[in-house]
Amino acid sequence: MMHVYAFASVPPFAQGLVRDLRVRWALEEAGIPYRVMRVGDGADLSRDEYTKNLQPFGQIPAIEDDGMRLFESGAIVQYIAEQSSKLMPADPQKRAEVLQWMFCALNTIEMPVQNLASIDLFYANEEWAKQRRRGAAEMAEKRLAELARCLEGRAYLAGEFSAADILMTSLLRILRHTDLVARHPVLAEYQKRCEARPAFRRALDGQLGDLEAAA
Amino acid sequence: MMHVYAFASVPPFAQGLVRDLRVRWALEEAGIPYRVMRVGDGADLSRDEYTKNLQPFGQIPAIEDDGMRLFESGAIVQYIAEQSSKLMPADPQKRAEVLQWMFCALNTIEMPVQNLASIDLFYANEEWAKQRRRGAAEMAEKRLAELARCLEGRAYLAGEFSAADILMTSLLRILRHTDLVARHPVLAEYQKRCEARPAFRRALDGQLGDLEAAA
Repeated sequence: MMHVYAFASVPPFAQGLVRDLRVRWALEEAGIPYRVMRVGDGADLSRDEYTKNLQPFGQIPAIEDDGMRLFESGAIVQYIAEQSSKLMPADPQKRAEVLQWMFCALNTIEMPVQNLASIDLFYANEEWAKQRRRGAAEMAEKRLAELARCLEGRAYLAGEFSAADILMTSLLRILRHTDLVARHPVLAEYQKRCEARPAFRRALDGQLGDLEAAA
Repeated sequence: MMHVYAFASVPPFAQGLVRDLRVRWALEEAGIPYRVMRVGDGADLSRDEYTKNLQPFGQIPAIEDDGMRLFESGAIVQYIAEQSSKLMPADPQKRAEVLQWMFCALNTIEMPVQNLASIDLFYANEEWAKQRRRGAAEMAEKRLAELARCLEGRAYLAGEFSAADILMTSLLRILRHTDLVARHPVLAEYQKRCEARPAFRRALDGQLGDLEAAA
């Protein structure tokens, strides 16, 4: 059975955001069974063991599947998606479009979103962060406005629901401490539509439940 | 013939870094012919037309291939790589490893690298940037040290040269105004090894030559 590695405990501001969530979500959509392995003191393995054997950058998630070890949530979601037509169409042109939006989420959108979120969540009291926040917010707002235009008249990024929507929704969630998504009804409705999927609820309940059980 | 969209002109600090380079490099490795379409005033198409029809975020590159339009350099490089065993192995496990390092380059490594580079290249004179630079440099240094450990004893990221090396080398190049790569001989040698490939030289000469011809 596939093993998904997740932190045994995380601070409240990160609960529901840690990147094992997108992997659990993809697995729930694809109907592939998995077991969560907890990383941390006194858990299934220590962070040192995890960094040494599974993820050289110490980040969550990684997976182990039939002896193969894989990290980077984008690569893992793609690996899972290729096992399910629910997440990745077989048609080469449609498949390329899904890949386009997957990379868009993890590069074009993530860069300004994480930049703003790290100012707010990690550095809010630092003088440089106070000076930089407006510019960082403007960059995130610009990208979200462009993304909103792309989603006008579309339920999902690439036709049917796909792996790209899992990643993009995961990125929009990072801004939950702001009103930036709510300012674009098309984005807010898109996020709500994706998060209403039963597979998302199961994945989120799984992550939050595991963290609560460990607390 | 595949069309690759590139800026008709860019400031000197960006020449040799613009992301059409990685697409040209992949095409040169794969031996796929292409035509460069220049974006800008008085060029093949204006930036407004480009943003409207090809790339909703206005970023370079995009491609057009037999009627299909695709953006995000990671997705384009993957699209090309899937047409060439030189860039992406057929074996599913090895293929997943290449994808892992592609996403690693464009997410785990790019985030701190771009953060530092934008401070240096766009905001160097701003007070917040002066205060933030040390912290941003430390984050980039940490990731480079971890990457260097991954590359110890390896010529390339995933066995043979692959699409992942095209993306990772492109990321390391962004730090050319610093000594951060040079501090890790294993990284400097890796970058040199990748940049010594004839396909890279042709791609770089192509980008620089086109910009010179337009100047």
